[in-house]
Amino acid sequence: MRHAVIMAGGAGTRLWPLSRKMRPKQLLRLFDGKSLLQIARERLAGLFVPENIWVVTSAHYIDQVAAELPDVPRANLIGEPMGRDTANAIGLAAQMLARRDGDATMAVFTADHIIRPREPFAAAIRAGLEAAEKFPDSLVTFGITPTSAHTGYGYVRRGAPLGAQTFRVAEFKEKPTLDVAEQYVQSGEYCWNSGMFAWRVSAILGELERQLPENARGLAALASDWDRLAGTEAGAAQFAQLRKISIDFGVMEKAESVLLVEMNCDWKDLGSWVSIASTREPDEHGNVAVAPQVLVVDGRDNILVSESAHLIVALGVSGLVVVHSDDATLVCRREDVEQVKELTGLRTDVYGERFE
Amino acid sequence: MRHAVIMAGGAGTRLWPLSRKMRPKQLLRLFDGKSLLQIARERLAGLFVPENIWVVTSAHYIDQVAAELPDVPRANLIGEPMGRDTANAIGLAAQMLARRDGDATMAVFTADHIIRPREPFAAAIRAGLEAAEKFPDSLVTFGITPTSAHTGYGYVRRGAPLGAQTFRVAEFKEKPTLDVAEQYVQSGEYCWNSGMFAWRVSAILGELERQLPENARGLAALASDWDRLAGTEAGAAQFAQLRKISIDFGVMEKAESVLLVEMNCDWKDLGSWVSIASTREPDEHGNVAVAPQVLVVDGRDNILVSESAHLIVALGVSGLVVVHSDDATLVCRREDVEQVKELTGLRTDVYGERFE
Repeated sequence: MRHAVIMAGGAGTRLWPLSRKMRPKQLLRLFDGKSLLQIARERLAGLFVPENIWVVTSAHYIDQVAAELPDVPRANLIGEPMGRDTANAIGLAAQMLARRDGDATMAVFTADHIIRPREPFAAAIRAGLEAAEKFPDSLVTFGITPTSAHTGYGYVRRGAPLGAQTFRVAEFKEKPTLDVAEQYVQSGEYCWNSGMFAWRVSAILGELERQLPENARGLAALASDWDRLAGTEAGAAQFAQLRKISIDFGVMEKAESVLLVEMNCDWKDLGSWVSIASTREPDEHGNVAVAPQVLVVDGRDNILVSESAHLIVALGVSGLVVVHSDDATLVCRREDVEQVKELTGLRTDVYGERFE
Repeated sequence: MRHAVIMAGGAGTRLWPLSRKMRPKQLLRLFDGKSLLQIARERLAGLFVPENIWVVTSAHYIDQVAAELPDVPRANLIGEPMGRDTANAIGLAAQMLARRDGDATMAVFTADHIIRPREPFAAAIRAGLEAAEKFPDSLVTFGITPTSAHTGYGYVRRGAPLGAQTFRVAEFKEKPTLDVAEQYVQSGEYCWNSGMFAWRVSAILGELERQLPENARGLAALASDWDRLAGTEAGAAQFAQLRKISIDFGVMEKAESVLLVEMNCDWKDLGSWVSIASTREPDEHGNVAVAPQVLVVDGRDNILVSESAHLIVALGVSGLVVVHSDDATLVCRREDVEQVKELTGLRTDVYGERFE
């Protein structure tokens, strides 16, 4: 059977003041009243049956996630006691999944991207699942056809072709400098590393066992007793002992056989207010409303954000980001949106949970 | 007896989004939790007994005004059905007052200024009341010793001295150009026209009768039957017929005897967010908080306003005004604060009462 695991653990501190410790970005309803998590789940329609969709998230969010995804079985929602990076999140899901379906194929998805249009996405996922089933010891990584020399992504170099959009992986590359990124894109040999994967559960568990044996043992122990351990201090203590490591660094880069399936989609990491605004049509003056009620008088290139019907008026200002939440307002320049994460945790003595 | 009449009718549209049709600027609690109206009333302590303090305001605000000023008798709150400018507001108060106390001396105050320090204010008011009592047919206007060539105020030229700070008025001048204002200030002969006055009730009623006989008749008719007419459509219809005219243009400029009492105070019209900010101590980078919770990171000369404990964060921006209210947020540049009034009434089809 084919299973999907949606990774929905991040906090999204660059999206303050809407994102909070208890309200991470994947749960913000900024997309026609839908959250990124709902959109990630809808994207899987026709590819996986709801009973085979899993979500790994923070234990803090599990009730909210359940409310967002009513057709996903509650038993498929895995609440991590804390973040121990992607190798452990994926490893825990693989262990749980193997216990239910020993013969499973599994694909891993992120919850904080917009991927459009849907058809090339679905075609690539099908190709990836087929490759994982055809090469049962291989790990498949999905690569995005790059549209710019983005320095914020990792890159994957294509090796020998195995199908229309399927290749061996020649090499993983860390986030490059701009010069290097430009070379990558011009060469036509590189994809952006998407953080989406497909594999046989047996393949990923085998690689985890080989490369991260202590993590593998810890994860197996947790999964074998998850019903009892989930949400307990004992479970949290066991989870805390897992070495924190990413799936890319901990597994993919040294895996024995890695395949690349290329996905030719518009793919956006919605990490900052500017990237969220880029999913919307600006008005004739470049202003973007991520809010139901805004008014810009004499201004250009502003981004105005509110989940509620609070009215935001920008008069005579340009290039600003204004974000309204129930208990806090942020005003910054577009070019400073990456710095918003540095606000989080500032002066919690005074401002309390609004910065947590 | 000495009576005080506080004029509290204005809307304050430049203070949107805090000021609204139903929440005018004189009722905003922006000054250590006090409103301008409360401050205007406190300024009269020791000068007038509470039973002799009157307020002329819009009928819409009368319950709010009563709540703000619990020691002022409800019968002293005069609610105008609509604004018919200062000659009618003052005339109605004078008529009401004459009916209670035929021998009254009356001083008129505004509710939208900060006047500091209190002692020279109180001394000038006493001098004005004494002058009004000593010259029972004269109208006394209070003039502020000017500190700049302000083009937003009217000016009054001093004539012959009658006392330490009391003069005859030589001339009233409309709002001047900057050149002219500079000449006025340099000459040392001019004061700003404060909009505060003192006179015998008989003197102002006499001048109203002489200069605006139709208004005087209409006001007398309204006052004689106020208990029955207040708050009724019939009262509103009568009031609506009064010719709309200011006390300066309608009465003061052509009055037979006008005296000037000079008040050497810091006197600020709190009409805009910049003028309100000027009453606060800025931080070392020129940022002013008219809000309990603000944080400025890497920014200068911002004005941040909220009546509530909503947190406002300005990151990397300078020279902005950010105003948070429950249902709307305004962001503009300091130099555009005068244009805020033009927002009011815009798109009420969409934004409803938030712009009314």
